[in-house]
Amino acid sequence: MGVPPVTKPRATPDEAGSTGAAIVDRLTQLAAVSDEASGLTRLYLSPAHRKAADLVLEWMRDAGMSARIDAVGSVIGRYEADRPNARTLILGSHIDTVRNAGAYDGNLGVATAIEVVRRLHAEGRRAPFAIEVAAFGDEEGVRFPSTLGGSRALAGRFDPAILEERDAEGVSRREALIAFGCDPSRIAEEAHRPEDILGYVEAHIEQGPVLEAEDRPVGIVTAINGASRGEVKVTGESGHAGCVPMPLRRDALAAAATMVLAIESRAAAEPDLVATVGRLDIAHPAANTIPGNVTFTLDIRSPSDQARKAAVRDIADRIEEIARARGVAAQIHIGYEASACRSDADLSNALAAAVNRLGLAERRLPSGAGHDAMAFDGRIPFAMVFVRCRGGVSHNPTEYASPDDIDIGARALLDFIDHLAPASA
Amino acid sequence: MGVPPVTKPRATPDEAGSTGAAIVDRLTQLAAVSDEASGLTRLYLSPAHRKAADLVLEWMRDAGMSARIDAVGSVIGRYEADRPNARTLILGSHIDTVRNAGAYDGNLGVATAIEVVRRLHAEGRRAPFAIEVAAFGDEEGVRFPSTLGGSRALAGRFDPAILEERDAEGVSRREALIAFGCDPSRIAEEAHRPEDILGYVEAHIEQGPVLEAEDRPVGIVTAINGASRGEVKVTGESGHAGCVPMPLRRDALAAAATMVLAIESRAAAEPDLVATVGRLDIAHPAANTIPGNVTFTLDIRSPSDQARKAAVRDIADRIEEIARARGVAAQIHIGYEASACRSDADLSNALAAAVNRLGLAERRLPSGAGHDAMAFDGRIPFAMVFVRCRGGVSHNPTEYASPDDIDIGARALLDFIDHLAPASA
Repeated sequence: MGVPPVTKPRATPDEAGSTGAAIVDRLTQLAAVSDEASGLTRLYLSPAHRKAADLVLEWMRDAGMSARIDAVGSVIGRYEADRPNARTLILGSHIDTVRNAGAYDGNLGVATAIEVVRRLHAEGRRAPFAIEVAAFGDEEGVRFPSTLGGSRALAGRFDPAILEERDAEGVSRREALIAFGCDPSRIAEEAHRPEDILGYVEAHIEQGPVLEAEDRPVGIVTAINGASRGEVKVTGESGHAGCVPMPLRRDALAAAATMVLAIESRAAAEPDLVATVGRLDIAHPAANTIPGNVTFTLDIRSPSDQARKAAVRDIADRIEEIARARGVAAQIHIGYEASACRSDADLSNALAAAVNRLGLAERRLPSGAGHDAMAFDGRIPFAMVFVRCRGGVSHNPTEYASPDDIDIGARALLDFIDHLAPASA
Repeated sequence: MGVPPVTKPRATPDEAGSTGAAIVDRLTQLAAVSDEASGLTRLYLSPAHRKAADLVLEWMRDAGMSARIDAVGSVIGRYEADRPNARTLILGSHIDTVRNAGAYDGNLGVATAIEVVRRLHAEGRRAPFAIEVAAFGDEEGVRFPSTLGGSRALAGRFDPAILEERDAEGVSRREALIAFGCDPSRIAEEAHRPEDILGYVEAHIEQGPVLEAEDRPVGIVTAINGASRGEVKVTGESGHAGCVPMPLRRDALAAAATMVLAIESRAAAEPDLVATVGRLDIAHPAANTIPGNVTFTLDIRSPSDQARKAAVRDIADRIEEIARARGVAAQIHIGYEASACRSDADLSNALAAAVNRLGLAERRLPSGAGHDAMAFDGRIPFAMVFVRCRGGVSHNPTEYASPDDIDIGARALLDFIDHLAPASA
């Protein structure tokens, strides 16, 4: 029996409204699957993960997909193309959560992908490419030291050495996988050949306030920011708060305050670059003592590695200048550097075109948080659509995205699929 | 037998050099009297305090004074005048210490006063006024909540309610005094009538870096600074360090940094005024989280109450301005205010004249730290001479003043006594 072509009329807005509601219903069901009695906590390979994976497996099958749990615990559903030897589009996100999580982070992308395929199936349609829905289980990095094991396996980048990593209870990844019913010796077989894959597309809540501030339901991700992280130690001279006149002070806190403001102002001068001092510790602090030693953290992120590295250099120069001018010493140590992962231009443009066809102006923005999409960077093209979330709040039970915005995200994804050429990307 | 008049030739520099050495010798002996095996700790009414008091008692008697331990545990030596019905000059400081203290804080003033009287006695001289040397025992405020019990008793300002105060072991001041051999019911009898007293003069290490920075051995204290102390709470908005663009942030730490610099710059604009932020705490700090709540302390001191109050007002205004401009909230709470205690002009001029006669330019400076002299403020005129200390360091085993500087302090005090008229001040 021939399947209708993908160029069939798309869902009307009214029909689509029900898509948002259906996704929210799935999110509500998933949110009830927790490792803890109160709140949502669903760690990688935990009993709740197993229960959620079984639920997703069932949903995938109901949506017309063949589905299985792979060798790293990801749930993989497959909806075949309308033709043989077609390439594959992967839609996905994750179903593991942080502790005391919200219902939307990760789960939204999985529920959206399933619902999109369910609609195609309900309408008796297939695309000119296969669609795989991946529900990864190892994105949050809460249980084991490393992360993205699920998406890395698909991308052919799983490092078998991490099978020896142990959680806080001393259980290794290998042992946990076997207990989950997986066969760790077969992980390498999960790798896709890049030439078979059209791309990886992920829907996710923004986890930031940009879309809300601009009153936009969705945005297209330009890149997952690269990051430089480190620490600055400022050594001045401690002293009695009453006895050292202002001109004789070498106050490490006043010097650090000047540095904090220089960091803020350098970041503000660069679009899409952010810099944060999240910790600042005074050694032996006392209300009546001039701070002699201050340590603070530095976190600089940008979708452009070049812009980030230039900012790190400028900030280091400014810190040294400030230290010299104030007669204090400053040591800067950048201990962590990660490159930005840029979204694929063609896939992103195709997503933007879909957003435009819904009557919405496109908004391109970087992602400050990491995502499974990073695992595909440089190997398989990826793109992401962000859905507005209330207050930019995430990793928190108050996390929220509206059914209307979720609906728009799903419709954009469906429209994207309807317009994607089989050889595209 | 008639005693020689005070106008006898003063000690030559060579003779005086030995005064510095003699004082250092007494400080060395006192430093060995500690409540702890390693380091110097001598708390009020402790066994070490008792031992030090006995040593001081013996020194006073050897120096020609009648001496006793008074009802609050102070050691009081008296060297009579060359005439009957004379007034009294009190010289003093304290022999209690902080924990892990230096050898000079307090003890220097006591050893200097004893050595000054010992020289008069050795030369067979008496002044036209009696000299009392007071070695107070309750200046550091380490053991009990309140402080200055010894000097307050002499000034007629002892509050009997504090007898019920208890130390960390639950021992009350009253119990500790009785165990020390004192009779707390007789404390009121220790009060001097102001009309009988010429003044109170205290030598003390500076505990700050001003004299060292200007290469001066001694200085004359203009006032013991008044202080305003409080806390500022800044409430911004927490957020993910990667996901909130700079223009959408309400970073409580960046706001607090701006406030810290405004406080510093307002203080620097006012001579002798100092302002310190000694503690700064970020709520739930994390390197990858924009600080949402920051609390910091504020400590503002000045020899002028008017200048201090104006600075507190200006700083509060600036903090509110900064908060408004940054879209954060700031709450300022000033919980402690103490007025400045101004030195007596005549006594201070007389001390300055003595310094000048030693061939040194006078340097007037405020005291940032509190002293027993404060207990006499407004009732009995006081003056203080500061002796330079290395690095401005105090309350620390590395505390140090040179024998030469100590000698100059003692010679200035002796010269001051030699020139003080019996009806002066």
